[in-house]
Amino acid sequence: MGAEAERAAGGREEWADVTPDAARRLVSAAVEAFAERGYHATTTRDIAGRAGMSPAALYIHYKTKEELLYRISGIGHEQALRIMGAAAAAEGTATERLGDAVRAFASWHAEHHTTARVIQYELQALGPEHYAEITDLRRRTDRALRQIIQDGADTGEFRADDVPGTTLAVLSLCVDVARWFSADGPRTPDEVGALYAGLVLRMVGAETV
Amino acid sequence: MGAEAERAAGGREEWADVTPDAARRLVSAAVEAFAERGYHATTTRDIAGRAGMSPAALYIHYKTKEELLYRISGIGHEQALRIMGAAAAAEGTATERLGDAVRAFASWHAEHHTTARVIQYELQALGPEHYAEITDLRRRTDRALRQIIQDGADTGEFRADDVPGTTLAVLSLCVDVARWFSADGPRTPDEVGALYAGLVLRMVGAETV
Repeated sequence: MGAEAERAAGGREEWADVTPDAARRLVSAAVEAFAERGYHATTTRDIAGRAGMSPAALYIHYKTKEELLYRISGIGHEQALRIMGAAAAAEGTATERLGDAVRAFASWHAEHHTTARVIQYELQALGPEHYAEITDLRRRTDRALRQIIQDGADTGEFRADDVPGTTLAVLSLCVDVARWFSADGPRTPDEVGALYAGLVLRMVGAETV
Repeated sequence: MGAEAERAAGGREEWADVTPDAARRLVSAAVEAFAERGYHATTTRDIAGRAGMSPAALYIHYKTKEELLYRISGIGHEQALRIMGAAAAAEGTATERLGDAVRAFASWHAEHHTTARVIQYELQALGPEHYAEITDLRRRTDRALRQIIQDGADTGEFRADDVPGTTLAVLSLCVDVARWFSADGPRTPDEVGALYAGLVLRMVGAETV
């Protein structure tokens, strides 16, 4: 679903996998509340109120505030991993795969900037087991990107003296789109993706740009 | 003061301009509290407690929590602007100035990562007048970097088809160091600065790297 269509659908597409409808409304309300006031300043009562529900009705779906954050963080990180994993596993040269990965990853962080902020900035609020599980998703995303960059270094397509450092910088560049992106700004998510793909291909010294 | 010396001084150098000592202790305590729990979840009582003072003693120096955030944000943004402005105004080619700017700006965000997180993530909590004032500092920092990149495009040192977009990406890359940097990680602030200067010079197509 493109940016326009998703906006028209009120962002519901983002949480399509969350059922039933009441749970989906709670997840959506929690993301908004966490983004506005921070995790620690948000109460389950605030979240229930935003979703038009009672605290008791929230409790049927989520026992704690942390459980909501974990659900949001899991869905967001799984989407990010899926994007990066698909680019890594695709056919094509390392240059093509890196361009596609950055285009998709940066535009995802623009499109889903509210969710992306919450899952990045509130990591420390997860309980130890949930934190470990999310960290594993992050490592796999990092590994998928690192593999593309390593492939390009191996074939001579890229000049990357420091593959882990370059991987870190590329991920960081894309993730930080969520901080500065505004739907009212001059660039669409797709335009950010195209700009960043070009910049990153130059950063690794790819020949085609 | 280098990274090691500042750590040895317990980070006090960062707030050296804040006097008297009680006000400096409050600023330092507020940064830690905001970084840990978020601005909205922190009370002036929390901050006073961390500084080993009573809420009444805090009130002598800062009338509101927002005033503390404004002070922190002002000092942090002024330091960032000073670094970028010095690089823009320095002698040397655009390539040298961009390398120096990125090296200094990225390593500042590593060294001062706790402060940098607070001033980036809690911008919306500033009152309207303070927000406008801080936004002006941010615009001037952006303008200083943009000038360096424009100079390099004008002399033919850089290939930068989209100067505002490239400026945005370079600033974003450096700012996001504050999110992922850890003093326990494998890279020192100076190493991050060196890595990023090299990556950014390649990103703009500078010849010397």
